[in-house]
Amino acid sequence: MKLKRTLLASAMASLALFPFASSAMEKADLMITDAMVLTMNQDKTVYESGTVVVKDNKIIAVGDASLEKQYQAKQVLHVDGDIVMPGLINTHTHVSMTVFRSLADDVPDRLHRYIFPLEKKLVSRDMVRIGANLGNVEMVKGGVTTYADMYYFEDEVAKTVDKIGMRAILGETVIKFPVADAANAEEGIKYALNFIEEYKDHPRITPAFAPHAPYTNTTEILQKISKLSLELDVPVMIHLAESHREEEKIAERSDGLSPVQYMDSIGALNKNLVGAHMILVDDHDIELVKKSDMGVAHNMSANIKSAKGVSPALKMYDENVRIGLGTDGPMSGNTLSTIDEFNQVAKVHKLVNKDRAAMPPIKVIDMATMGAAKALHMEDKIGSLEAGKLADIIVIDTKAPNMVPVYNPYSALVYSANSGNVRHSIVDGKIIMQDRDMLTVDEDKIRQEALDFTKVVRETVIESGEVVQ
Amino acid sequence: MKLKRTLLASAMASLALFPFASSAMEKADLMITDAMVLTMNQDKTVYESGTVVVKDNKIIAVGDASLEKQYQAKQVLHVDGDIVMPGLINTHTHVSMTVFRSLADDVPDRLHRYIFPLEKKLVSRDMVRIGANLGNVEMVKGGVTTYADMYYFEDEVAKTVDKIGMRAILGETVIKFPVADAANAEEGIKYALNFIEEYKDHPRITPAFAPHAPYTNTTEILQKISKLSLELDVPVMIHLAESHREEEKIAERSDGLSPVQYMDSIGALNKNLVGAHMILVDDHDIELVKKSDMGVAHNMSANIKSAKGVSPALKMYDENVRIGLGTDGPMSGNTLSTIDEFNQVAKVHKLVNKDRAAMPPIKVIDMATMGAAKALHMEDKIGSLEAGKLADIIVIDTKAPNMVPVYNPYSALVYSANSGNVRHSIVDGKIIMQDRDMLTVDEDKIRQEALDFTKVVRETVIESGEVVQ
Repeated sequence: MKLKRTLLASAMASLALFPFASSAMEKADLMITDAMVLTMNQDKTVYESGTVVVKDNKIIAVGDASLEKQYQAKQVLHVDGDIVMPGLINTHTHVSMTVFRSLADDVPDRLHRYIFPLEKKLVSRDMVRIGANLGNVEMVKGGVTTYADMYYFEDEVAKTVDKIGMRAILGETVIKFPVADAANAEEGIKYALNFIEEYKDHPRITPAFAPHAPYTNTTEILQKISKLSLELDVPVMIHLAESHREEEKIAERSDGLSPVQYMDSIGALNKNLVGAHMILVDDHDIELVKKSDMGVAHNMSANIKSAKGVSPALKMYDENVRIGLGTDGPMSGNTLSTIDEFNQVAKVHKLVNKDRAAMPPIKVIDMATMGAAKALHMEDKIGSLEAGKLADIIVIDTKAPNMVPVYNPYSALVYSANSGNVRHSIVDGKIIMQDRDMLTVDEDKIRQEALDFTKVVRETVIESGEVVQ
Repeated sequence: MKLKRTLLASAMASLALFPFASSAMEKADLMITDAMVLTMNQDKTVYESGTVVVKDNKIIAVGDASLEKQYQAKQVLHVDGDIVMPGLINTHTHVSMTVFRSLADDVPDRLHRYIFPLEKKLVSRDMVRIGANLGNVEMVKGGVTTYADMYYFEDEVAKTVDKIGMRAILGETVIKFPVADAANAEEGIKYALNFIEEYKDHPRITPAFAPHAPYTNTTEILQKISKLSLELDVPVMIHLAESHREEEKIAERSDGLSPVQYMDSIGALNKNLVGAHMILVDDHDIELVKKSDMGVAHNMSANIKSAKGVSPALKMYDENVRIGLGTDGPMSGNTLSTIDEFNQVAKVHKLVNKDRAAMPPIKVIDMATMGAAKALHMEDKIGSLEAGKLADIIVIDTKAPNMVPVYNPYSALVYSANSGNVRHSIVDGKIIMQDRDMLTVDEDKIRQEALDFTKVVRETVIESGEVVQ
């Protein structure tokens, strides 16, 4: 329908007498022209020589080159055949952990032996802000325009997101152990409620609850969060069906239920939930997931780094589960832009399915855009380039030698591109990275703050020998 | 030993009276300072604030910051803490196929149904030159300083390698079918002999035979090549133990032998051989490989794209087989720099071994440098930063947001880096890329030639519907 309307408008514009044409032109703020536009709409329409028109924070038209004659924009980006696509949506991370990246990789039982103790010593408002600033820059430079985060002091993350101009769902952690911003789960819920109250009307930030996992919270807490989330209409993000340790603890608690079955049995599996990982799910679990309308974050690259296995993500995608790609945190992944995982996602699913045709590039791109938007229940606002949607748009360089030639743009993106090929990132109609320069934050200052913080990390845990490199 | 000599020289230099020190300083051509130097020598020595000194085409000293006072270099690169390491060695590719990249990915029986017919129509001297130029630029920008190639018209590839200033082993294909530069295998051998004669004394290019695979050549041809290669002392590169099709055909021919056993049985498994892929090898095959002293190219990313499986590369590495990383050709991989595969190599081996400690980053880096040099029997010349070795050196940006911080340089390289993070590439003592600018070739012209060639591809095979996108 959108396409038809655009073509009609195009026909009308071309009827206007040329010298007076400008008076009939619609005003716009930003126009991207000469683009290979991957809309990622329902029909996966591609415009080989396409145009995207933005007004305020929204896309008002997407179509072929004829749109250029219909709109007069304050700013025009001629992208010379580069790929223009929806901004990537990272469905699961812990952005502030950038400051710990490359620390104690690959050690056994890492979460409980290293990460929790490390966090106990080092998580603070400052650490959260410093790490989030660095991770935000990495994501914007890697084409991520929206992300879903689970960590502590999420109000600090929110300030960094507000400043840089990204979009995010920020989940305040609730966990039964004492942590940096709460002595127990009840305090975590209180912290989250304050945060939700503070940010509930922010145009780009959605505050959320983030119970760490089923086994690190009580049934009562999980039920309370579920109830509150429905009352307040906010998302709940949780690590779910991730590890055998979790499976065992939940089975003990629930007389043998799987983590997904358990969440369903306590009334916590619903449309507000986003489950990260979902590796250990069987067909019955998938049925429950579909029925609940919950979202799923597929973090394959992080999951195989810890040898946890590969989620049946392709099966879930094919069965219309709301599923999108995530990176997990930078101690797990170890990067934050899903574009650097496309290649692995496509290839590892081929490997485990023993089928080279499994997980074709178009499905990977869908899981990084519309699929991810669906996983976060934001598909009415973001995930595709269509008139009426929010203007979250990225431009991928097709001149870099690894990107030449482009017979098939989905193949080129999945099998050849890396985060260094992202040229411009636009969020909410605003260019926040242009030709790899950050426009809204001081990248050098952010890097220096992170490097200064690494001295604290070295003094606190490395020089003492607590974390072995 | 090298280290000791360097320290002694350092001590002697510091004894000199300072105002006269310069007169005592040794002359050098290039010095890289303020570097995190990963030597990849036997002891895996790392200099956190290190220096590498180059004279002519060789490394003459590697050590800590004190070296700066001993040498006076014509050119100094202060790299501000960036990682300095041996240039990457890509042990297996078909560089000219860049012009076909992103064409007909993921179709069944792709080699026989698409690639061979495509090549029959489109391989030419021009195509080989155009594709090699593009691939060379991609490799240099991705930190590859040496590569091993198997294709047609290798004398054309040689000209491009000579021009750009890279190092390469170039294998002229021998195959029983008619191909662009030979009507049959005997003609292929003749072509290879001429090529070998022409390039045998080139300082950076090693000409070689490249019988396509055991099943696409006769036993007699394989034996003839083996004999010639020993007489001429040139490498033989071959696709080996790659597919079930190959296994079946070789088993038919040899009364049930595996491809490796068959090659051994005909006397073709020897120190001059480099086997690419080596997926379908068992413990007995590995014993034969070790005994023969042959090299192995491990192309994991390409192998899983075609769902062929994962080579027991880690086992081979641990058993001291000469094994290094390769990308395979750009229709298979689809990129040419192994740095973009480090992440996958580390993680997929963890997945298949069900062990997060398997394939730690240092082994991946070793397989990309010294391991790869050993696979190509070039470990006396390249693969590590040590005095006396050829000066093939790369510098990796540690300021990019995905590379901050670096608690462990091997982790940072394997889990976080991509080809866009390579800052400088030096081959044979000469800087051929500096701050991502190509110094020896015209990148824009090379890209344009490749794009022009894509029009021929589109007209020849896409518009006719022969290759479905």
